[in-house]
Amino acid sequence: MGKKVFGVDIGGTTVKMGLFTAEGELLDKWEITTRKEDNGAHILPDIAASIKERMDKEGLTFGDVEGLGISVPGPVDDEGVVHKCVNLGWGQFDIDEEMKKHIDLPVFAGNDANAAALGEAWRGGGKGCINVVVVTLGTGVGGGIIVNGKILSGSHGSGGEIGHIHMNDNETEQCGCGKCGCLEQYASATGIARLAKRKLDADDRPSSMRDARSLNAKVVFDAAKAGDELAIEVTEEFGEILGKGLANVADVINPELFVIGGGVSKAGQIVIDLIKKNYKKYVFHGSRGTDFALATLGNDAGIYGSAKLVLDGVKNS
Amino acid sequence: MGKKVFGVDIGGTTVKMGLFTAEGELLDKWEITTRKEDNGAHILPDIAASIKERMDKEGLTFGDVEGLGISVPGPVDDEGVVHKCVNLGWGQFDIDEEMKKHIDLPVFAGNDANAAALGEAWRGGGKGCINVVVVTLGTGVGGGIIVNGKILSGSHGSGGEIGHIHMNDNETEQCGCGKCGCLEQYASATGIARLAKRKLDADDRPSSMRDARSLNAKVVFDAAKAGDELAIEVTEEFGEILGKGLANVADVINPELFVIGGGVSKAGQIVIDLIKKNYKKYVFHGSRGTDFALATLGNDAGIYGSAKLVLDGVKNS
Repeated sequence: MGKKVFGVDIGGTTVKMGLFTAEGELLDKWEITTRKEDNGAHILPDIAASIKERMDKEGLTFGDVEGLGISVPGPVDDEGVVHKCVNLGWGQFDIDEEMKKHIDLPVFAGNDANAAALGEAWRGGGKGCINVVVVTLGTGVGGGIIVNGKILSGSHGSGGEIGHIHMNDNETEQCGCGKCGCLEQYASATGIARLAKRKLDADDRPSSMRDARSLNAKVVFDAAKAGDELAIEVTEEFGEILGKGLANVADVINPELFVIGGGVSKAGQIVIDLIKKNYKKYVFHGSRGTDFALATLGNDAGIYGSAKLVLDGVKNS
Repeated sequence: MGKKVFGVDIGGTTVKMGLFTAEGELLDKWEITTRKEDNGAHILPDIAASIKERMDKEGLTFGDVEGLGISVPGPVDDEGVVHKCVNLGWGQFDIDEEMKKHIDLPVFAGNDANAAALGEAWRGGGKGCINVVVVTLGTGVGGGIIVNGKILSGSHGSGGEIGHIHMNDNETEQCGCGKCGCLEQYASATGIARLAKRKLDADDRPSSMRDARSLNAKVVFDAAKAGDELAIEVTEEFGEILGKGLANVADVINPELFVIGGGVSKAGQIVIDLIKKNYKKYVFHGSRGTDFALATLGNDAGIYGSAKLVLDGVKNS
C-alpha cells in the first residue's frame, strides 16, 4: 500500500477534507463545520480529531501518511506563518507548530486561492501541464500562477493578482481595491452584471435581461446564448477586456495553458471562445500557442492543491 | 584555490568572455571576434581555443573549472538545443554536444537577453534580491524575469516579453511585432524619439529638441533635464506608459525589485523617478513596496549571467 496524503481546505463555514493517494487520486472526501467561536481556537483541534478518526477507520498509522496540507483563507508566509485570517478570527501564528500539538504529521500550509490554483493545475483543467495560469472569475477575479509546477507566490505573497491589472484609463467607478479600471471591474461576475446594467441604461433596444429579477452573470450569458442582442454585446465586451488582459499576462509568463474557473465559467465553452478570440488579437506571437480550458474540480480544487503542497514538500506556497 | 567559471556572451560582432570565481567575482574579461563565415562554424572552436589559452595562462586544469556558460542571440530550449541564431548563421543544434567536441567542460547554454537579466539580478542592480524583473530599454523593450533566483523562461521561451504588452487601444502605427499599441512603442529609445516627433509635429511651442541633428532618447532626456517644456511632457508620457505597464507586470509577478537597464537608462535617476511616480498610481497595493534600481553591469551583464547559468547547474534557462 502506497502512502497517503490528507488535503484540508479551511473555509469560513466548512472545512473540506480529502484523503488522497500519493499519486493524487482522491479516495474519499468529507466536511466538518468551521467552529469560529473563541477566535477560531477549535478549528485545528477539530481537523486533527477528524483526521485521526479517519486514520483509525482506514487502519492507517502515522507512518502510512506522508503529511497534511492545509489551505487557509489568508496570507501564509515563507516560514508557514499565517498572518491573519479575519474570516476565522485568527491572528498571527505558525500553523505547522500549532498543528503539531494536536497531531504528529508534517504540515504544509498555503493560501487558499493559490492552493486551489495548484489543485486545478495538477489534477483539474491543467492536468499534465507545468506552466499554467488559473483564472477564477467569481465575485472578483483571482489568479494563481504555476511555473514549473510550483506556485509563483511573489515577493510579498501578491503574485497572480491579475484581477487588478489596469485595463481602462477612462473608468470612473472605483474597484474594491481603490483603483479605477481594474480587470475585475469587467470580467468578474459582479463586473459582468455592471457592464450589463450600463448597457441597459444606455440603450433603448429590447432585451430579455430587462425582465430578470436580479441581473447577474448567469442571466447575461443565458440571454446571450439565446441570441439576445444586448447580452451578446455585453459578453463581447467581457471577452474583449478579459482576452486583452490575459494576453498581457501571457506576454509576462508565457504559460502553456490558462484554466478558467469560478462561477462565471459555468457558462461553459462560450466563455473560452470569447476569451480566445480576443486573446489572439492582442498577444505577442510567442504566446499565440497558449491554450484555454475550463476548470474541472469545482470546490474540490482546494483539497487537491493542499495535498499537492505536501507532495511537493513545499511549505507556504 | 576555489573553482573557476567561464561566462561567454556571443554577439553578432564580438564574443565577450569572462573568468569568474565560483562566488561571482569577475577576475578578468576579454573579447574575440565573432567569425560568422561558413554559417558561424568557427565560433564555438574559437571560443574553446580562447578558453584553453586562458586556462594555460592561468595554470588552470579542467578539474579547476566548474563549467562554461554560453549565451546566444536566439532561443535555446530546455534540452540545450539552439533553435536558430540568424545573426550567427546558425541553424538548429545541441550546443552542449557540439562544444564538447572542442573542450572537455560542462556547458550550460541560454538565451542572451535572459542571461543578461540573470546577471543583473545576481551581481548588478538586483544584487541580493531573488525576485527581480530586469527591464532593458534599448532599441526595443526587453524583459527578463527572475523568480526565486531562476529565469522564468516560459513554456515556449517567450517569458518576459514585456515590450509587447498591449498599452494603447488608440495607436494607429504598427509595432515591429505587427500589433499596435505595444509598450515598446512608447518606452524604448525608438519609442521615445517617436513620442517626441509626434509632440513636435503637433505643437507650435519652441523646444531645443527642434534643433537636434537627430532626435533620439538622449536628446529628449537632456532637454527635459534642462527644463525644456515639450521634452518634459514627452518624458512624462514615457513615464506614464512605462509606469502603468510595469504596474501590470508587478500585479502578475510581485517582484521585490525592477532593474532598469539599456541605453535609455543612461539618462539616470530621472528615468527611475518618472517610472516610480506613475507605477504607484496604477499598481495593486500588494506590490506597492516593490523598488526600482538602475542596471549597473552594462555590457558585462551577459558574461555574469552566463557564469551564473553554470553555478545554478541550470541548462537552457
